[in-house]
Amino acid sequence: MRTKQEYIDGLKKMRRNLYFNGGKIDRDDEVQMNALNVMGVTFDEAASPEGKDLCTATSHLTGETINRFCHVHQSPADLHKKQDMTRYLCKKVGGCIQRCMGVDAINAINAVSFEADKLNNGNSEYHQNFLKWLENFQKNDLVGCCAQTDMKGERLKRPADQADPDMYLHVKEKTKDGIVVKGCKLHISEASIADEILVVPTRALGPNEKDYAVAFAVPADHEGLIQVVHPHSSRPREAYQRGFDGGYTDSYLLFEDTFIPWDRVFLCGENDHGGICALLFALFHRHSYSGCKPALGDVLLGLAATAAEYNGIEKTSHVREMFAEIIKVTELGYAAGYTASDFGKPEVYIPGMGRAPYGPGSCIPDSIYANVGRCLTGEAVFHEQEMLCNIAGGFPSTFPYESDITNPELKPILEKYLKRNPNIPVDDQIKFWLYFIENTCTGAAGTTNYGNYHGGGSPIMEQIAITSQYDVKARKRLVKELAGIKEK
Amino acid sequence: MRTKQEYIDGLKKMRRNLYFNGGKIDRDDEVQMNALNVMGVTFDEAASPEGKDLCTATSHLTGETINRFCHVHQSPADLHKKQDMTRYLCKKVGGCIQRCMGVDAINAINAVSFEADKLNNGNSEYHQNFLKWLENFQKNDLVGCCAQTDMKGERLKRPADQADPDMYLHVKEKTKDGIVVKGCKLHISEASIADEILVVPTRALGPNEKDYAVAFAVPADHEGLIQVVHPHSSRPREAYQRGFDGGYTDSYLLFEDTFIPWDRVFLCGENDHGGICALLFALFHRHSYSGCKPALGDVLLGLAATAAEYNGIEKTSHVREMFAEIIKVTELGYAAGYTASDFGKPEVYIPGMGRAPYGPGSCIPDSIYANVGRCLTGEAVFHEQEMLCNIAGGFPSTFPYESDITNPELKPILEKYLKRNPNIPVDDQIKFWLYFIENTCTGAAGTTNYGNYHGGGSPIMEQIAITSQYDVKARKRLVKELAGIKEK
Amino acid sequence: MRTKQEYIDGLKKMRRNLYFNGGKIDRDDEVQMNALNVMGVTFDEAASPEGKDLCTATSHLTGETINRFCHVHQSPADLHKKQDMTRYLCKKVGGCIQRCMGVDAINAINAVSFEADKLNNGNSEYHQNFLKWLENFQKNDLVGCCAQTDMKGERLKRPADQADPDMYLHVKEKTKDGIVVKGCKLHISEASIADEILVVPTRALGPNEKDYAVAFAVPADHEGLIQVVHPHSSRPREAYQRGFDGGYTDSYLLFEDTFIPWDRVFLCGENDHGGICALLFALFHRHSYSGCKPALGDVLLGLAATAAEYNGIEKTSHVREMFAEIIKVTELGYAAGYTASDFGKPEVYIPGMGRAPYGPGSCIPDSIYANVGRCLTGEAVFHEQEMLCNIAGGFPSTFPYESDITNPELKPILEKYLKRNPNIPVDDQIKFWLYFIENTCTGAAGTTNYGNYHGGGSPIMEQIAITSQYDVKARKRLVKELAGIKEK
Amino acid sequence: MRTKQEYIDGLKKMRRNLYFNGGKIDRDDEVQMNALNVMGVTFDEAASPEGKDLCTATSHLTGETINRFCHVHQSPADLHKKQDMTRYLCKKVGGCIQRCMGVDAINAINAVSFEADKLNNGNSEYHQNFLKWLENFQKNDLVGCCAQTDMKGERLKRPADQADPDMYLHVKEKTKDGIVVKGCKLHISEASIADEILVVPTRALGPNEKDYAVAFAVPADHEGLIQVVHPHSSRPREAYQRGFDGGYTDSYLLFEDTFIPWDRVFLCGENDHGGICALLFALFHRHSYSGCKPALGDVLLGLAATAAEYNGIEKTSHVREMFAEIIKVTELGYAAGYTASDFGKPEVYIPGMGRAPYGPGSCIPDSIYANVGRCLTGEAVFHEQEMLCNIAGGFPSTFPYESDITNPELKPILEKYLKRNPNIPVDDQIKFWLYFIENTCTGAAGTTNYGNYHGGGSPIMEQIAITSQYDVKARKRLVKELAGIKEK
Repeated sequence: MRTKQEYIDGLKKMRRNLYFNGGKIDRDDEVQMNALNVMGVTFDEAASPEGKDLCTATSHLTGETINRFCHVHQSPADLHKKQDMTRYLCKKVGGCIQRCMGVDAINAINAVSFEADKLNNGNSEYHQNFLKWLENFQKNDLVGCCAQTDMKGERLKRPADQADPDMYLHVKEKTKDGIVVKGCKLHISEASIADEILVVPTRALGPNEKDYAVAFAVPADHEGLIQVVHPHSSRPREAYQRGFDGGYTDSYLLFEDTFIPWDRVFLCGENDHGGICALLFALFHRHSYSGCKPALGDVLLGLAATAAEYNGIEKTSHVREMFAEIIKVTELGYAAGYTASDFGKPEVYIPGMGRAPYGPGSCIPDSIYANVGRCLTGEAVFHEQEMLCNIAGGFPSTFPYESDITNPELKPILEKYLKRNPNIPVDDQIKFWLYFIENTCTGAAGTTNYGNYHGGGSPIMEQIAITSQYDVKARKRLVKELAGIKEK
Repeated sequence: MRTKQEYIDGLKKMRRNLYFNGGKIDRDDEVQMNALNVMGVTFDEAASPEGKDLCTATSHLTGETINRFCHVHQSPADLHKKQDMTRYLCKKVGGCIQRCMGVDAINAINAVSFEADKLNNGNSEYHQNFLKWLENFQKNDLVGCCAQTDMKGERLKRPADQADPDMYLHVKEKTKDGIVVKGCKLHISEASIADEILVVPTRALGPNEKDYAVAFAVPADHEGLIQVVHPHSSRPREAYQRGFDGGYTDSYLLFEDTFIPWDRVFLCGENDHGGICALLFALFHRHSYSGCKPALGDVLLGLAATAAEYNGIEKTSHVREMFAEIIKVTELGYAAGYTASDFGKPEVYIPGMGRAPYGPGSCIPDSIYANVGRCLTGEAVFHEQEMLCNIAGGFPSTFPYESDITNPELKPILEKYLKRNPNIPVDDQIKFWLYFIENTCTGAAGTTNYGNYHGGGSPIMEQIAITSQYDVKARKRLVKELAGIKEK
Repeated sequence: MRTKQEYIDGLKKMRRNLYFNGGKIDRDDEVQMNALNVMGVTFDEAASPEGKDLCTATSHLTGETINRFCHVHQSPADLHKKQDMTRYLCKKVGGCIQRCMGVDAINAINAVSFEADKLNNGNSEYHQNFLKWLENFQKNDLVGCCAQTDMKGERLKRPADQADPDMYLHVKEKTKDGIVVKGCKLHISEASIADEILVVPTRALGPNEKDYAVAFAVPADHEGLIQVVHPHSSRPREAYQRGFDGGYTDSYLLFEDTFIPWDRVFLCGENDHGGICALLFALFHRHSYSGCKPALGDVLLGLAATAAEYNGIEKTSHVREMFAEIIKVTELGYAAGYTASDFGKPEVYIPGMGRAPYGPGSCIPDSIYANVGRCLTGEAVFHEQEMLCNIAGGFPSTFPYESDITNPELKPILEKYLKRNPNIPVDDQIKFWLYFIENTCTGAAGTTNYGNYHGGGSPIMEQIAITSQYDVKARKRLVKELAGIKEK
Repeated sequence: MRTKQEYIDGLKKMRRNLYFNGGKIDRDDEVQMNALNVMGVTFDEAASPEGKDLCTATSHLTGETINRFCHVHQSPADLHKKQDMTRYLCKKVGGCIQRCMGVDAINAINAVSFEADKLNNGNSEYHQNFLKWLENFQKNDLVGCCAQTDMKGERLKRPADQADPDMYLHVKEKTKDGIVVKGCKLHISEASIADEILVVPTRALGPNEKDYAVAFAVPADHEGLIQVVHPHSSRPREAYQRGFDGGYTDSYLLFEDTFIPWDRVFLCGENDHGGICALLFALFHRHSYSGCKPALGDVLLGLAATAAEYNGIEKTSHVREMFAEIIKVTELGYAAGYTASDFGKPEVYIPGMGRAPYGPGSCIPDSIYANVGRCLTGEAVFHEQEMLCNIAGGFPSTFPYESDITNPELKPILEKYLKRNPNIPVDDQIKFWLYFIENTCTGAAGTTNYGNYHGGGSPIMEQIAITSQYDVKARKRLVKELAGIKEK
């Protein structure tokens, strides 16, 4: 396994294909540093005494110890550890740990490539190619990300019905050596700091949409790939240093007739499995949210409780009610993921068939529990922000700039007044509110809300998954029996 | 183990101490028959091929097979089975299975009596007395209920501060042979069809409230005990028979200077353990709700989905959203209980001490998960009723009486119009709406909402449990570290 | 104007066409007495010094003083008085005053019959016939009700597409003397205690649905009309008398090839105006809700505050928050109606045309404000019940029967315990909880919730009215201008 | 009346007492320009044919035409116009119009200074001094702002109980010529672009807190006054110009032993009237919210509807439901303000006395309606943001920078993909999303949420106002009468 420094050194050698703010940037540009700090923790903790049990796993390919983010889950125990690792690491960085996209895509493609080969009766070698790619990925401890979301164009039209066929990424040409793809994948977190990008479809696909049923992996600096980067992180501090400087980035990935060699193609034309691949990545990713959202809940509760403490209202009953609400969402989200892990099996829900065995035997979390948990935490996002706002009062919205607090003319006066709680050092109060503001009243906070709401699929996507997969008929049968109705 | 008939035959032999509607009634009076039907299922299913695995257990006292409702949970596996048995049986009867009060009280007293003896350094024999009582209870497959809630008087005053000291049940006298108690326990479900009543305290108690720290068991027809019964069940049907006729009863239990012999007293004066007993019964009972509320969720979804089917709106998106909401509450409630079971240990939360070993080694569910689950399902009650109302439309509120539908003058006309969905036999439509009405627009339905909201403790009680037991400080510490604040 | 007694005497002379519980009943049967009590208040108050200003009006036809429930609103001042009369009377009876259906139907038909004649270029005399009917109605101070809701059959199919054409009431035959109609109108409040029934369409209608575009008035005991009655009221009390015994009834109205003479037909075949008639009755009726729902809010707050007082928790902050929530809904509902009144004009919203003059100049409330108000109060129903449940605790669900409290054996014991608040006479506590229960835990309470939710149109109907009538385009234009987008 | 340019020229002449980002700035610094643009509209529109009817009034002092923001409301008609002016102007600028703080403070002080003089039996001349100040303020068309919120220190302690007495602004010394004050007022919107600052107390005050009962006016560049400015506005655009560049500023106002001459002091030591002054400013300001929040609702609906249009989902039912929700809050907020205006009288609610005449006869909006309206719109803030997020999808969170879209290498590619809706020019789509982002995912948007939630008093402050002022007793009496309880 690599160190944070080896990882960064690897990034520095890559082709310059990142565009930002009117020009090109290096991968270790300062706007990316906070995101690199975050990713670095996944290396540090895999090597730390406290973290290594959760953050490493034993490769089912080689038997070697690898970073858990490179692992194919073999059992419910693996799923439990993935959930707990995610919560553990997200707490370390106070936000999204970013590397889960890769492991979730690996696990989806692992199953889908196997089944697609089965469908093709040995006329494709997707799964073998994938395993080869994976062995290298594990050995070199690479960072993977997942490119799923397409531009989508007109939302109520299917890919095949769009005015511009490139609104969903698709195969334009197949040659002896590989395929040529075109399209734009967007909202791709960590792509600008990843080693590898795993591309998967974004939705269910019909027989006339086989060109859209494509999954593959490319290096993040692949020829023919442009990244337009959107970094999200708070400004550097001067006088009042944070405990951890975190942030993240998103990219638009522009595939401009990009060539992909066959040994990196893991699905190409099997439209049913394309749809399952989309669902399966979403399922693994919603399971990841059962780790990260509880961690964000921990941070949220810490923000709320510290704000209440500093405001001197920690014991009031309406504040306690809000704590209970935050804890409820946090631990129900965790319990849903825990149950999804425990009920994990090598099975997926297949529309029209119900739950059926799928893939080469690796462990897939229960879909209903993964979905109800993610739905709950997604729907809670804005109400949680409301509770922070309620407890904090107006203070965060007009807090002086760091540069004004340290202005020698103002410092003694402002320090006098910012020491609202006489029992707490004024520097602690200042540091706390600056950090609170960064979690609530900045552009990064606003976009984080959007990510926390829509990431892994908006609440409505989970509602659709839930109602289409749940056995509603059995409940109707139950009630009809109780009511005395005889089913024919 | 007994049969339903043996159970009823036992009840018939009891002293007539049930008062209802101005006079006295027998235990097998017709107003109790639906409740007896429900309880009967706990005997039938313990003997049925389908049910016996869930509904029986192996006594840790005798090694014999007993009804699980008489069992002291030995492991997380036992807690899982108790949860699943509860869901299974509640679905059979379309509502509360009623016998859980007994098993929850047994498990609380089992731990508390052990610890009280430890505190008394062998000067009390609560636990031995309890185990003797329990062995007989298990062997004779008795039905237990739990009497917890007191009249409470002025809600913001403690027991010791009430104008009338009897507002909480308490010990008035101790003799060589036993104790004399006075007070009124109310909302005591199934007391009028139980064999035994387990009495426990209702709240935390101070050193000046030792007389209120009392737990004991009495037969339900004990001398000096009056029951004022309030039955809740739907009227008998004539033409349109239900699949199952269920209902339940509640009693006011009036203890009028009632004598309890020492071998039935399991706690008497140990005020700290009295408070823990109250909490512990509530905890086991909230865990029971992780089985029954999902079952009610199954019924609710069946009602909603069948109403939508019969109204021809099953596919509309706002109806699907409501299905998702019902499923979400149902399965999050289940997942919380599942996680609480899996994290079960012989430990309780003790105020000021955190989680600590407690009792003689039996298994206690995790309190945070049991509480977040019950809180969620309690808070959902009225919104769930709103969704049923939304989907049903006004139909249930003015539906003709059974006697009018079968009036020969009206029958052909009403059957023509009540056949709103031309593809479904009119009798099925009538049976369904009559059953729907009984779940929504009757007195029994109204009181059921109150029970589903407050039973096992109102949402606010769970909020208090959650915020007082959760490690809020650790979350504050986390945020302070992230913000750069150094704890002194 | 008549007295309550004259009104009841009038009912006694009517043909016996009421069916209930397997047989026929008189109009002054005891199951109808509570509903008659309610209606009686509309006569008493029109003659009382306190009530007469609000409850009477000056007929625009004759200049005579009439009951306001027989009046065609001439101005915003009339609409204000109608709103305030409704709140005033509903408070007197602690619930729905029931007579508003008539006045709302009169006002709708008044406008629609005028416009239909205009469309017919003088070939119809609907409006003249209506005015003649109205003059008699006013002079004799009759009670009108409105029959709108049809059986509807398959909900997503239009009237013309139903398997059974009678699922919506329609004209089967036209003769020289009149028309013959068939169909079932349901949920028709107060029809069994009304003098006259005004029938209007239930929805928008297409050119192929002209037979469904029919409005007329018939006496409530008209030949060919059967009423199946569903009464809703609490049982008589013995020892603990209420201050007012109220209740209501609903009927299924079965029109079995019923003949209606032309001078009672006010619309017949003009499908566009049929749809407007449906909307217009709903609009007037939603405006009525801006009077009755605030009255129910007053009762609700009284129930909540008295329960809190008797429970000794009136000052706690979470109880105060619930009071605020109830007041908020109550007074926002009132303010919406007030504003709708003040913006009243002889105009309606016509799909595709926007707001346009309509009718012979009488005053129509603003549709947006009437709809947002009714939507708010409808959506609040179940949450309001939740708040009552929260404040009351479990007490109402298991309260002893009146007959048990007065059982001489139990009376001294139960009175001791039911005197939970030592500062309030036990009889007052008993009376209060009995009344509370009737508002929350009875069949009548359950059906009232359904009425309060769906009456005048379910929240979703108001949402549709709001979004289809509001000038959304203007808001888009505004944002585009602010964003710098130039509209072409 | 002045022009925008005259107003700005006036600001330029002021003493440099604004601190920002480590130094001092001019009043026409570029970080203030967007706020000046907003304020400019209040001058432009008072002179525009379309705006002048709403935006001007007739001074009751001089009979001259003045800007309505300088006016003391004389009648309900004035209150209606103030509400409508506010909505009109806020729509022009797409946000807060900022000048209402001044007019609301004027109206509060007008009444309070009158009553304080009455209390002092002619030994004070507050009101005369105020009227003199006001005449000049009106004549010169000055911009006023209101400094109310204090630093507050420990929130559960009263001013007199704070460790640091300066946590609330107070009088330190009285001399023959004036008073000396010390304290920090924060969140003071528009103070850095105002001509005059009106200082009022922030809460109810006891007899031992007379020094905190102080109201006065100072020029915004007064000697001894420091402003620490926090500007909130979006970055300048280059290629994609907005239709209007708006923004706002907030200041910390540091009063460092500042001298105020007597002729500018309008209250000094009358603690009861100090509390009423705080309430009264809040009341006028909550009434202002009945104008601005509906305008923000218009913008919000425009954002939601345009996002839905551009995403091609405008007709889906769940999107329509969200439109209805936005409209509901918007128009209920408007109706509450409308009713508050119509019920306006020269009366205030005085704790312990109920509603009583107050002030010299000017018109004060009804407090219940002003409060229920503001409470509703405050509580809706975060849910409204959730709806925008739901409709927009993830697009706003990762949208490319303007500088990347115009990068010649990227422009053709990005324009291809950003043209998601093929029927709308790509430039319009880009402009719209950039504007949408500024309203949702920026620091300015985040702080705006805090302002919209807490401004004029947080929802909990309105709840307290509502429950303390509403006649809860009358509702209890009503229910007791209905229940048959006789009040003694």
